[in-house]
Amino acid sequence: MEHRKLKNQDEDDNGGGNDKESQKDLSMTKVPTLGGTTVHWSKWKLKIIVIVALTLLTSSQGILIVWSKINGKYEYSVTTCNFMVEALKCGLSILALARMWRIEGFTKDNRLSTTLDEVIVYPIPALLYLVKNLLQYYILEHLDAPLYQILKNLNIISTGILYRIILKKKLSNIQWAALIQLCAGCSVTQLKTNSDAVFHTSVEGWVMVIVMALFSGFAGVYTEVILKKHPSRNINVQNFWLYIFGMVFSAVAIVIQDFDMVVNMRFFYGYSSITVIMILNQALSGLAVSMVMKYADNIVKVYSTSVAMLVTAVISYYLFGFHLTYGFSLGSVIVVVSVYIHAVGKQR
Amino acid sequence: MEHRKLKNQDEDDNGGGNDKESQKDLSMTKVPTLGGTTVHWSKWKLKIIVIVALTLLTSSQGILIVWSKINGKYEYSVTTCNFMVEALKCGLSILALARMWRIEGFTKDNRLSTTLDEVIVYPIPALLYLVKNLLQYYILEHLDAPLYQILKNLNIISTGILYRIILKKKLSNIQWAALIQLCAGCSVTQLKTNSDAVFHTSVEGWVMVIVMALFSGFAGVYTEVILKKHPSRNINVQNFWLYIFGMVFSAVAIVIQDFDMVVNMRFFYGYSSITVIMILNQALSGLAVSMVMKYADNIVKVYSTSVAMLVTAVISYYLFGFHLTYGFSLGSVIVVVSVYIHAVGKQR
Repeated sequence: MEHRKLKNQDEDDNGGGNDKESQKDLSMTKVPTLGGTTVHWSKWKLKIIVIVALTLLTSSQGILIVWSKINGKYEYSVTTCNFMVEALKCGLSILALARMWRIEGFTKDNRLSTTLDEVIVYPIPALLYLVKNLLQYYILEHLDAPLYQILKNLNIISTGILYRIILKKKLSNIQWAALIQLCAGCSVTQLKTNSDAVFHTSVEGWVMVIVMALFSGFAGVYTEVILKKHPSRNINVQNFWLYIFGMVFSAVAIVIQDFDMVVNMRFFYGYSSITVIMILNQALSGLAVSMVMKYADNIVKVYSTSVAMLVTAVISYYLFGFHLTYGFSLGSVIVVVSVYIHAVGKQR
Repeated sequence: MEHRKLKNQDEDDNGGGNDKESQKDLSMTKVPTLGGTTVHWSKWKLKIIVIVALTLLTSSQGILIVWSKINGKYEYSVTTCNFMVEALKCGLSILALARMWRIEGFTKDNRLSTTLDEVIVYPIPALLYLVKNLLQYYILEHLDAPLYQILKNLNIISTGILYRIILKKKLSNIQWAALIQLCAGCSVTQLKTNSDAVFHTSVEGWVMVIVMALFSGFAGVYTEVILKKHPSRNINVQNFWLYIFGMVFSAVAIVIQDFDMVVNMRFFYGYSSITVIMILNQALSGLAVSMVMKYADNIVKVYSTSVAMLVTAVISYYLFGFHLTYGFSLGSVIVVVSVYIHAVGKQR
């Protein structure tokens, strides 16, 4: 479900991975001890690789989105792109599974067949993203764009709160403070234009933004719940089911938003090679997000994607002559220091 | 030495107090335990009162400076004002001492007479502030004003570094991070105009800003060194000597900057009742700063004055219709959370 990524470079997503390992939760609060087993270290290595992959893939995402536009406009249908991303992730998950079946044969954990009881929760994240994305269009009618850019960082806070409530995992007081700083820091980087403008928006606008942040955070946290509920279940099987429903709800979005365009023209109208690369990139980062959710958690994802946002801007600086504003420079410092505070400020 | 306060609402200062107690260092890292003695609690009470006084006095300072201007210009000479502030602080210190002498008689700790060895260090802070204030005029010729507003917050970092080096007091890693966030947060609150502008300034400009931040930090930390070197020495005696040299160097500043004005017109030209109230306020906040330096430390001072800056803005919002910009709102969140992180992130 990558709708809002194309339109807003938002970072919350569910995704998938094609790794063979199925492991228990490796939350950030655990540190590898020198006396730890090699298994413990290999878990950490996997986690680091996945986080770096997510950060790099997300960083290039924003740049590909800019490149994919022609004269600042999308020539292609964004909703069909999202559908293609879901389909590609689904296909990649099946490929990874096929390889595994050939090598290891079928097991309880890698077979696709499932019970209704297990599969019933899989549509939920996709449904939440769909609602969130539709809500977004209405919000943009009520809020000015710069305020919206700032307020959508509230999903960082909502993710933290829902992570605490739903996943029952604790953050230390300092980590909560770091999360607030991260949210504020990300907003500061976006203080580009109209920063003289004052906070005056309708109560309605605020309520909708908070509701959207909750939907977004809930979708992320719920994906983590699903992926961790059956720790031994192969991630590709879990991804397959997530993406099947992702495809279904992307199709719904096409009908709602771009039905006329798709009917009158062709599904792939306006696609260029950049569009194809962008879809590939988004599918891979979706898979990385899914792995981060399974092997790390939503908080790690939030920090990774925030750092990715900074990397994107630095790359853009060289590629597109993006200006490093005071706001961006100060916000970057705040984001980076927040990451440090989060890491150091573990539960005591 | 209040020169730059009038011109830039800067917050670093040495000052004095008229309290009878002379106490050992009460650094922030000590917490009152439930089993602690009442002495420990009374020290804490004193510290809290002094910090609140400093924050409130500093908050009203900025507002009085705005009020004291006529059509946005200073009608009076800023350097003579600074001289008056030093003289008033000196006078108040003598008054407090006179009262003490009448009640307690002369003791080793409250007599004004001193050794050359003790007094030789007292001109140093005043001299450092003079150099810093002169440097400031040259810097403003090399940097644009918004960039200068942002970069002068670097004195928060320089204070931390010099506090560590000179006073040998440790901050935890998290407290260092909080100090960086505080510096960035204060800068963000000032992102009002030209925030689209990019960081392009000469190497020379940067070097001068860093040198100025070091002078400013050094002056503050050195004042703390002087006040704490003889913990039992009455603070009013210490203040007396600090302010005597403050008067001397203020007089030097008058000669350098406003000699013509003072000669051609009168010393008190352009003074209004607001100017008098402002001088009184600055003298009292100077005394509060001195007490914070003696009974708490420079780090506490840096946090207090940053919070005071936020309080000033909120008061200005009601008094002068100051706009709460996105930058100010986000910066305030960052500053407040930094204070929290600093308090919680004590040395473990």
